[in-house]
Amino acid sequence: MEKLYVIKIGGNIVDNSALLKECLTAFSKLEGQAILVHGGGKLATQMASAMGVEQTMVEGRRITDAETLKIVNMVYAGSINKNIVAQLQALGVNAMGLTGADGNLISAHKRTGTSIDYGFVGDVDGINETLITQLLNSNIKLVVAPITHDGHGQLLNTNADTIAQSIATGMAKQFEVHLIYGFEREGVLSDVNDQSSVIAFIDRPFYGTLKDQKVIFEGMIPKIDNAYLALEGGVQSVIIGKAEKLNQLINGTAGTTIKI
Amino acid sequence: MEKLYVIKIGGNIVDNSALLKECLTAFSKLEGQAILVHGGGKLATQMASAMGVEQTMVEGRRITDAETLKIVNMVYAGSINKNIVAQLQALGVNAMGLTGADGNLISAHKRTGTSIDYGFVGDVDGINETLITQLLNSNIKLVVAPITHDGHGQLLNTNADTIAQSIATGMAKQFEVHLIYGFEREGVLSDVNDQSSVIAFIDRPFYGTLKDQKVIFEGMIPKIDNAYLALEGGVQSVIIGKAEKLNQLINGTAGTTIKI
Repeated sequence: MEKLYVIKIGGNIVDNSALLKECLTAFSKLEGQAILVHGGGKLATQMASAMGVEQTMVEGRRITDAETLKIVNMVYAGSINKNIVAQLQALGVNAMGLTGADGNLISAHKRTGTSIDYGFVGDVDGINETLITQLLNSNIKLVVAPITHDGHGQLLNTNADTIAQSIATGMAKQFEVHLIYGFEREGVLSDVNDQSSVIAFIDRPFYGTLKDQKVIFEGMIPKIDNAYLALEGGVQSVIIGKAEKLNQLINGTAGTTIKI
Repeated sequence: MEKLYVIKIGGNIVDNSALLKECLTAFSKLEGQAILVHGGGKLATQMASAMGVEQTMVEGRRITDAETLKIVNMVYAGSINKNIVAQLQALGVNAMGLTGADGNLISAHKRTGTSIDYGFVGDVDGINETLITQLLNSNIKLVVAPITHDGHGQLLNTNADTIAQSIATGMAKQFEVHLIYGFEREGVLSDVNDQSSVIAFIDRPFYGTLKDQKVIFEGMIPKIDNAYLALEGGVQSVIIGKAEKLNQLINGTAGTTIKI
């Protein structure tokens, strides 16, 4: 099967033009098919502040009220997405930036039934495998913004890690999919203050131990849970590490590999 | 040849949710291939004001400095484009929103050599006919935002009328293209204060006369010049009128038809 890299880059890369350039340059040199999923970054918060839209955070998560949705849509689908696309085009990559609404790429529903009302936040229902396959086969590299839709006209703010996992899993029937979670650290660290303490491999039992020992906590838990969803869904490998070290993550000389 | 409607809708429609819905509903019922190109509207100006970015207008045109480019990109490619796409999806249309950077849909260069420095404004060099044909053949309706790129990483603010004309002309070899310019009036009016004074047909000699008589002036001149570029480039018909009357414009019971 043909290789497909699904690469998620987080806000820290998006916010740092030098790191972003490094990451996109590595992305432009990848052999095989590739899809880039990007997160948000600080720009949405800055915009909200400039626009006087108060941001409510509950347990570290942004509550997406109607005004906040307008801002994140503009920032993610407009600013971040199109700047990445233009930079990739300059690097000779025929990039195309899409949200989940475009071509019905990712269908979702508004999160309900939770104790916290997250507002206009979407949970993914499915991805449009046919469209993705067709675009990949046309030598297009997709750049996906973390915005989905409910099919009834409502845009929804959606976690980029989850989008990357959903795309990776959805494409695993047709491709040998490798999912890469790029973020601000070298990988999963045994000591969060020591970037050299990267844990090279984590399997299920070890994951349990690391959680029990509180070595893995907070935001890393949903990321690794997403990794296991992907692996259980047929994704070949999941690697977590610094996005600008994309080549090393792929060739196995950096980052943490998650295994079943 | 198969019919292709290239429909440009202006800021007045984008700003008015009821008219926009009417227009998109008509769009959703069109038989044949269709591409929607949208303009800007007031939101960019409101955003600039809220963000404290001063807007410079010269001869009725916005000067696109770096900060203004960021805003128009967010508003056009993010807010307006994705809301139209989500609404069309809800109407059962598989819409996909793109800028000129996406898939290298529209290549452009920064306008230079003019007496006024317009800033980051792009003049169109060409369109990606192959990509457009492929997407149309996949039953996708394109929704194009008036943002292009120069291939070197620079996004550019680009006139939506010109984009619509460029797409219409570029596709005329493969399709029977009908270009529709939707705006706030019933058509080209012989009396600008009387919406019932629509001129049904304008040909070249009559256009000259109407310009001499100052019946056609200001913003209508580049619009009709664009219409003639399209007709000379092989576009079958160009019709100007109210966007929400799309069906009537197409069946010839409303608007002004421009002829060679």
